[in-house]
Amino acid sequence: MIIIMRNNATKADIEAMERRLADFGFKTHPIYGETKTVIGAVGDKRRLSMNQLLMMNGVENIVPIMKPYKLAGRELQKEQSVIPVGNTTIGGDRITVIAGPCAIESREQFSYVAKKVKEAGATILRGGAFKQRSSPYSFAGLEEEGLKIMRDAGDETGLPICTEVLDPRDVDLVASYADMMQIGARNMQNFKLLREVGKHNKPILLKRGLSSTIEEWLMAAEYIMSEGNEKVILCERGIRTFEPSTRNTFDLSAIPVTKELSHLPIIADPSHAAGTYKYVSSLSLGAVAAGADGLMIEVHQSPETAMSDGEQSLMPEHFAELMTKLKPVADAVGKKL
Amino acid sequence: MIIIMRNNATKADIEAMERRLADFGFKTHPIYGETKTVIGAVGDKRRLSMNQLLMMNGVENIVPIMKPYKLAGRELQKEQSVIPVGNTTIGGDRITVIAGPCAIESREQFSYVAKKVKEAGATILRGGAFKQRSSPYSFAGLEEEGLKIMRDAGDETGLPICTEVLDPRDVDLVASYADMMQIGARNMQNFKLLREVGKHNKPILLKRGLSSTIEEWLMAAEYIMSEGNEKVILCERGIRTFEPSTRNTFDLSAIPVTKELSHLPIIADPSHAAGTYKYVSSLSLGAVAAGADGLMIEVHQSPETAMSDGEQSLMPEHFAELMTKLKPVADAVGKKL
Amino acid sequence: MIIIMRNNATKADIEAMERRLADFGFKTHPIYGETKTVIGAVGDKRRLSMNQLLMMNGVENIVPIMKPYKLAGRELQKEQSVIPVGNTTIGGDRITVIAGPCAIESREQFSYVAKKVKEAGATILRGGAFKQRSSPYSFAGLEEEGLKIMRDAGDETGLPICTEVLDPRDVDLVASYADMMQIGARNMQNFKLLREVGKHNKPILLKRGLSSTIEEWLMAAEYIMSEGNEKVILCERGIRTFEPSTRNTFDLSAIPVTKELSHLPIIADPSHAAGTYKYVSSLSLGAVAAGADGLMIEVHQSPETAMSDGEQSLMPEHFAELMTKLKPVADAVGKKL
Amino acid sequence: MIIIMRNNATKADIEAMERRLADFGFKTHPIYGETKTVIGAVGDKRRLSMNQLLMMNGVENIVPIMKPYKLAGRELQKEQSVIPVGNTTIGGDRITVIAGPCAIESREQFSYVAKKVKEAGATILRGGAFKQRSSPYSFAGLEEEGLKIMRDAGDETGLPICTEVLDPRDVDLVASYADMMQIGARNMQNFKLLREVGKHNKPILLKRGLSSTIEEWLMAAEYIMSEGNEKVILCERGIRTFEPSTRNTFDLSAIPVTKELSHLPIIADPSHAAGTYKYVSSLSLGAVAAGADGLMIEVHQSPETAMSDGEQSLMPEHFAELMTKLKPVADAVGKKL
Repeated sequence: MIIIMRNNATKADIEAMERRLADFGFKTHPIYGETKTVIGAVGDKRRLSMNQLLMMNGVENIVPIMKPYKLAGRELQKEQSVIPVGNTTIGGDRITVIAGPCAIESREQFSYVAKKVKEAGATILRGGAFKQRSSPYSFAGLEEEGLKIMRDAGDETGLPICTEVLDPRDVDLVASYADMMQIGARNMQNFKLLREVGKHNKPILLKRGLSSTIEEWLMAAEYIMSEGNEKVILCERGIRTFEPSTRNTFDLSAIPVTKELSHLPIIADPSHAAGTYKYVSSLSLGAVAAGADGLMIEVHQSPETAMSDGEQSLMPEHFAELMTKLKPVADAVGKKL
Repeated sequence: MIIIMRNNATKADIEAMERRLADFGFKTHPIYGETKTVIGAVGDKRRLSMNQLLMMNGVENIVPIMKPYKLAGRELQKEQSVIPVGNTTIGGDRITVIAGPCAIESREQFSYVAKKVKEAGATILRGGAFKQRSSPYSFAGLEEEGLKIMRDAGDETGLPICTEVLDPRDVDLVASYADMMQIGARNMQNFKLLREVGKHNKPILLKRGLSSTIEEWLMAAEYIMSEGNEKVILCERGIRTFEPSTRNTFDLSAIPVTKELSHLPIIADPSHAAGTYKYVSSLSLGAVAAGADGLMIEVHQSPETAMSDGEQSLMPEHFAELMTKLKPVADAVGKKL
Repeated sequence: MIIIMRNNATKADIEAMERRLADFGFKTHPIYGETKTVIGAVGDKRRLSMNQLLMMNGVENIVPIMKPYKLAGRELQKEQSVIPVGNTTIGGDRITVIAGPCAIESREQFSYVAKKVKEAGATILRGGAFKQRSSPYSFAGLEEEGLKIMRDAGDETGLPICTEVLDPRDVDLVASYADMMQIGARNMQNFKLLREVGKHNKPILLKRGLSSTIEEWLMAAEYIMSEGNEKVILCERGIRTFEPSTRNTFDLSAIPVTKELSHLPIIADPSHAAGTYKYVSSLSLGAVAAGADGLMIEVHQSPETAMSDGEQSLMPEHFAELMTKLKPVADAVGKKL
Repeated sequence: MIIIMRNNATKADIEAMERRLADFGFKTHPIYGETKTVIGAVGDKRRLSMNQLLMMNGVENIVPIMKPYKLAGRELQKEQSVIPVGNTTIGGDRITVIAGPCAIESREQFSYVAKKVKEAGATILRGGAFKQRSSPYSFAGLEEEGLKIMRDAGDETGLPICTEVLDPRDVDLVASYADMMQIGARNMQNFKLLREVGKHNKPILLKRGLSSTIEEWLMAAEYIMSEGNEKVILCERGIRTFEPSTRNTFDLSAIPVTKELSHLPIIADPSHAAGTYKYVSSLSLGAVAAGADGLMIEVHQSPETAMSDGEQSLMPEHFAELMTKLKPVADAVGKKL
């Protein structure tokens, strides 16, 4: 790391810093400029909090050189991870399409949608049994009954199933039904939950927090991986900005940025980013062309009666149309659908 | 609510919407403009999801008229809430000052800081026993041992204690020691945790999420209150913006806005907003002058060796100086310190 | 528009509002709910400022129903505009590729890059003669000498040329050389400049401001169009958010959103959004797949000696590679390159 | 500056970088870590664009050490600037209060408000003769007629006058009437206009851009100062964020941050930040307590008929009340009103 001293730092300040760094086993390399001194420090930062150095006399700023994530980064693992999920994989040369309704509402509804999305080419089923709702008065999901419905639909269609887990107390239960567990955007920094899913060996779909930087997102992946579960799939679902015409702003750049920094696969969730079905098709084609490993799309047989997020769901026939449009785009970037 | 129909909505679309609204017990009032029709609908919205209406043919947008929070809002309760916390209250004519270190590191450290902040005039002690850390490799707190240290320091100094709870599984434990429980910014929409603390009757300090709107924050308060615990205190701690010179942007306007919309007290946390001790004093004076009911300030006897967030902590002597400066500002706005 | 009255609005407040609206020729339709009254008002809003109504007693909020832009919107003009620029067009079934260096540095440099991008398939040349630089100590462009160099390169290669105009005093000069004039992001709300370019009949490439909503962007287009120049092309170049890994966040959704709201063509500028050449290719493919009418790409023969924005420029050979990758993506969405 | 090389940078890459730096007169200090090399470089950065270095082989990132602004910074000028404006000063121990209507609408209106704000204790008059309006169909100001009305009101009341200039072509005209010229938020990076006002010696009130970082704002001040006009006053007026309950988010931290980085005075504009008169008083008290050198407040005798921004204007009697509340807060922080 590099310690930048203030213009008015004294010789004593600089020497005190060098001693402190030496105490922690760092080699120091001071560079004296005309008005400022900076100190390069080589050593193992995990033994020392940068914050503590920041408080010493005469310090202006500290610049870390190494990335804070190890397991999620490209530095230790160069090759792209390909993660098995039930009978399919995410991260290889095939575009993964995860589809299904926001919430599981009934056995009939879910089974119907499951068959429809399977027919259209989806490779994983999604559906919510435990729902995060911003109002305490909204429908919160069928809970275990929903998990059972989902498991049965997965078995009927032969598609792996993916569902969200909200509470550390529910992880074992959800893991006993699901092929992949989802950590929602609002829980991206629920570190207790991250540690809990890290103890299982089911793949984890980790949504980016609404106001999380890509570095924080990779650190959340690191949390899961540091518990032993390295099967993490990133999911970009839009970030919060000032623009009101979409619910969140889909950050297309997150695709090439995470591809550069990390070996983990990344899929795009245009439904939650847009907040309306109208833009889902355009964002889906864009994400795949930009290099996403897959898509997660909300599909509902009757969006106007959906108990959650109906306005962003595609009808099965529109989902099928999207899959038709997606095929040549996947081909164009050398992927299979 | 108001349903705005598209320019090209047909007569059939408008009639279908009126029928649907009537089915749910709404009275409808269509207004025909030159190019657009809008429909006013009067009734109990809780029976119907607006999202479902949004999906009907010919609908452009729906504008809600009533606030989605009831218990947290001013509409049902006009007078400002004054909330008892141990032997003090928050929300009346006295400025509450909550002070202490970010993390409880040892009995000696905490006890020393507790006495110092009490001497300087703090009215509630703070300290973290369970810590949210963005790196899995950082110090995560002393857990129950920290709660015991804190309880003892509270009893010695006669100050109520406030500490964060992170996990629904820890709520009973934390409630058995603390006088007030804190919900951190990253957990503001951890709805399982909100429901759990809502079942206790200890006051809850609810921090605003980094990217939460004020309406979402009041809905998080509503979650807690809807479980029966109406003793919620709001805490503004900065929002995420593009400006890099502070860790987050302290939103001063949140003070008058929440005062207008809600009867709940609001306190300001300048330490986490600024991310550096240098701006804590300026932000504290500003927040109190703008109408905050109190402050939460990080104080550490030796910030350069702190195990967490040292760079934003004041030393006890600087905290005492701040309290001296705060006195005339509190007086100026008619409050006691 | 809809006027929402406060809970405590009196009968007198409501009548005063109705009278005021009637004075301005509006027909009013009050709707009395249990706790609130709202008033629908049909008429010509241009005669009245909503702000004035907002200040009347008992008013809580006013919701506009009609879009504030007329000429830029889809309401009056349904079909997509196709805008001629020199010997080509923007907005039809062919992807426009505008390429060239950030700044025109010399005749040799510009002529070399111009030939290279033409060979690779660019259809319009770009280059900066007047530069916006955030430091007063940076290179500010060759000015008229740059315009001459650019005109000659355009004539040599047979490509139309596009360059930025910064100052209302330079509009005539720039218009005398350029085939298309660009309004930069920092000038998107420089209304004096917008009016000035609106008086010419050269097509205008209007970049989105760093913190402009799509509605404000369309209002900036409206400014130009209201002066008589309807040849406006929108250019998405990233918005300012909290994410530091790219210079700005490319807002992919702006493509389907402007396509829905406006008949104007939209092109994408991935170079300025990303701020680094590394992500330009991924963003370019994504933008075209999502429906952009074209791209604007910075190309420099020697980015490491560029006088401006070198780090985001592609070398000519990488630009040629991008064009090769772009071809099948354009095909996949039914466009020609 | 510090050049951070990639993990896979070769010895040749590092040597090439050292040679390039040496060519530009830098002394280099390479530091070899276990996985990365960083190079400290001491010299005059103005001769070299960092962007060019960024493009060299094996470079990961470059960290500047020195601030890019010199004249606006504290490094060369330690003591706080006190800037004369007509018969008053900004930046000393007296709180400056600039007040008046958003737009000058008529001689009667402006003269009436001018007398009222003078009586209540304002020290500078404000009013707009040239207006930035986001719709081309809105009132754009009385232009020179407005300047005359304003000058006369200034002379009558004995208060200096401050008004916005929008267009480089109008600078001489505005300077011939005004005691202080304002650069609006949307023009903060209109560098042509900044240079033009830098050639005059009238003090310049420089509003922060809606999405400008504090560093960019100080660079805009540097533009003006580098032309010879060092009389720049900063004005914080809110930044664009995701929060919808205020028009912009007033960034209170900008006060202590600019005080640390710059010797220039800073005043707060709560009217534009809030976008509603309701929060102006709270924000005003907060800003002064936090250390602002003054306030700019919109006052209109009849906000509900104002031709611009009525909803954020105080009535003269409410402005007088605010001044009464402000007095003890100014006293509390050792300032005079």
